Amino acid sequence: MQTVIWKQLNSEQQLQVLSRPAVNSSTDIAGIVADVVSQVREQGDKALIDLAAKFDNTELSAVRISQQEIEAAEQGLSEEFKQAVAQAKANIEVFHQAQKPQPISLETQPGVRCEMHYAAIGNVGLYVPGGTAPLPSTVLMLAIPARIAGCKKVVLSSPPPIAPEILYTANLCGVDEVYAAGGAQAIAAMAYGTESVSKADKIFGPGNAFVTQAKQQVSGDHAGAAIDMPAGPSEVLVIADDKANPAFVAADLLSQAEHGPDSQVILVTTSEQQAEAVNQELARQLALLSRNNIADQALSHSTAIVVNDLAQAVQVSNLYGPEHLIVQTEQARDLLPEIENAGSVFLGEWTPESVGDYASGTNHTLPTYGYTRTYSSLGTLDFMKRFTVQELSQQGLKDLSRAVVPIANAEGLDAHRRAVTLRLGEEQ
Amino acid sequence: MQTVIWKQLNSEQQLQVLSRPAVNSSTDIAGIVADVVSQVREQGDKALIDLAAKFDNTELSAVRISQQEIEAAEQGLSEEFKQAVAQAKANIEVFHQAQKPQPISLETQPGVRCEMHYAAIGNVGLYVPGGTAPLPSTVLMLAIPARIAGCKKVVLSSPPPIAPEILYTANLCGVDEVYAAGGAQAIAAMAYGTESVSKADKIFGPGNAFVTQAKQQVSGDHAGAAIDMPAGPSEVLVIADDKANPAFVAADLLSQAEHGPDSQVILVTTSEQQAEAVNQELARQLALLSRNNIADQALSHSTAIVVNDLAQAVQVSNLYGPEHLIVQTEQARDLLPEIENAGSVFLGEWTPESVGDYASGTNHTLPTYGYTRTYSSLGTLDFMKRFTVQELSQQGLKDLSRAVVPIANAEGLDAHRRAVTLRLGEEQ
Repeated sequence: MQTVIWKQLNSEQQLQVLSRPAVNSSTDIAGIVADVVSQVREQGDKALIDLAAKFDNTELSAVRISQQEIEAAEQGLSEEFKQAVAQAKANIEVFHQAQKPQPISLETQPGVRCEMHYAAIGNVGLYVPGGTAPLPSTVLMLAIPARIAGCKKVVLSSPPPIAPEILYTANLCGVDEVYAAGGAQAIAAMAYGTESVSKADKIFGPGNAFVTQAKQQVSGDHAGAAIDMPAGPSEVLVIADDKANPAFVAADLLSQAEHGPDSQVILVTTSEQQAEAVNQELARQLALLSRNNIADQALSHSTAIVVNDLAQAVQVSNLYGPEHLIVQTEQARDLLPEIENAGSVFLGEWTPESVGDYASGTNHTLPTYGYTRTYSSLGTLDFMKRFTVQELSQQGLKDLSRAVVPIANAEGLDAHRRAVTLRLGEEQ
Repeated sequence: MQTVIWKQLNSEQQLQVLSRPAVNSSTDIAGIVADVVSQVREQGDKALIDLAAKFDNTELSAVRISQQEIEAAEQGLSEEFKQAVAQAKANIEVFHQAQKPQPISLETQPGVRCEMHYAAIGNVGLYVPGGTAPLPSTVLMLAIPARIAGCKKVVLSSPPPIAPEILYTANLCGVDEVYAAGGAQAIAAMAYGTESVSKADKIFGPGNAFVTQAKQQVSGDHAGAAIDMPAGPSEVLVIADDKANPAFVAADLLSQAEHGPDSQVILVTTSEQQAEAVNQELARQLALLSRNNIADQALSHSTAIVVNDLAQAVQVSNLYGPEHLIVQTEQARDLLPEIENAGSVFLGEWTPESVGDYASGTNHTLPTYGYTRTYSSLGTLDFMKRFTVQELSQQGLKDLSRAVVPIANAEGLDAHRRAVTLRLGEEQ
């Protein structure tokens, strides 16, 4: 990775260093996805079966996976894997249970009670990508908060053939139905429903450019479904001082780089020697990885930034707003109050990103691509919605009318005023 | 309004009765808005000045309203209005202060600390529509939670000429900058910034079809800005039993109907006599309204639904998912546990919708058009974002590695495993 000295750059160059690679969102993809969405809306299950043959090279006898097949998935799995999933599940449950919101009830003035209530979203759809390796961790991160929130129906779709790790984890987490559908067609099926697929109110989960585009399209249609958050390539920013272990720093950078050639990896360090040492470790460790080709491509557009001090390091991090922020400094927690834009923060030398990816208890579904400025780490609240309640006494209404009536008059809305004054006998 | 008997309808007819009028989202509007957005991005303030002359018939000397002009706005306003705004502001502050979230910190297992932190969104832009009457209540509902959340910079845009009620309320609520810009051009200016307009990370507020389309467009561009929620025409559903006062029910239906010809108004009642009595009251009260032409148009596509009992009334309401739900029954609070989809609920005969529109303390920015299934009433949390933090001890990492390593292996991600095992001395 290239090394730059922050203070030697002008502000335009600084922004350039922190710019993200352009995401492929060609009109080609939009058109292909629009066609797939139409096909699924018109033909339902038949479209899913046809598209599985075409894109997944799979002959489906049914879109929905039978409970028998789901339960049989456990057989081929090791005890070690099952215990790992159980441990991760327990931690994720503890942290997401703690996020369950408390209702609010108070009087803003005598006789005027205001409340905030929460209700689970009724039907949610979870998407779990396929590809070179199964992602049981994605099942954990989506299904556990859905169940804790209290969603009535939780369904999951993943491209066929679905790995036993996915089926096992889905069953363990109480997913109600599993569908063998991938890509844009899975998103369309859950957004609109088919003969076999239950319509979801909101769709969650990562995916490739087609999945992302399909989520955008169905969320823009009020007959479709809401979605969790905009998606972008995964990324990490590591803040390291001169005391950090360069082998640990390099290992963290590589664990992000191996995700994909478009992963972005940034080191911000107070020490030019540290940047050099990390670069040497990257070269050494890269050779040991089975996905070293992917990681190497990601590193080719990544940068080490040398800053004056840790305050400047946090400024750079806030400007970038990383999905994952790893802080490997002597007093890592001291930087926390200044952190504004990040998806998930990993403090100290014993906290690699992969603990959050799988098992610490935090959610690994995070805003990326700069969306940390406005979007939140996925949590139990994303599977719920808030609504307010108010209840006034007769005297409360009388007292509040002194505020309501003049504002209604200023806004020229007679009936707004009259709904109050008629009740109080002041107008007929 | 027409009256239907719910049990006499088949399920298709039931859905038809609850269907919302189609929203005009023609490609014409999308094209016009795209042109305006481009013009503002390219020409900045000049575009805003040109478009104010074209659409608002106003010659602007500057886009930003001077502090002097803002402070002068108070002079023409009545004490009654100012006291009303002060009372509303105090109530809204109490309820939105109570929504400030508490961070979470716990150990999911020994040595594995997980935390949820909250940070304010840095820069927010508020849009306040112009039109026939000024809307100071919209200023209250957007600026107060922004300030309570702790946003660094709060800016507001409204079409010129801006009414003194808006300027006064904006100043009272601590808005930092006010711009004389309306429509799609105001949204574009706040999303991308101009010489005079400060770029916002997230844009809030209601508007017409052009504003709504502009919000959609800028929120789809990662260089643009996030938005509060999708918009649709305003709507109310009133549940009334046979004991409800038909004059009160009619007043509430009219206070929604006067918003616009596309407002939707639904009465759900257990009593056919009640439906008839409300219809008579509607006719009587309609004649007294200055906006009776608008209200009459809204009522022409509205319906009274007669149901078997209150349980069925709540089912109908949940199916519709109204923005505003008014419950005028003897034991209104008893229905609350069954309510799933609603933006804001008004309990009992002394709680008209207009108290929530202005002054009870709840926010009047609510999901509509069926979005109550997945979206929340606007609150302090919408001006903040959550991020997670984790911090492990060396022993915590060792204990957690039993979960992380098998899952990383199942997912085929070597570097994810190695970030753990290298720290523990188990791999080099």
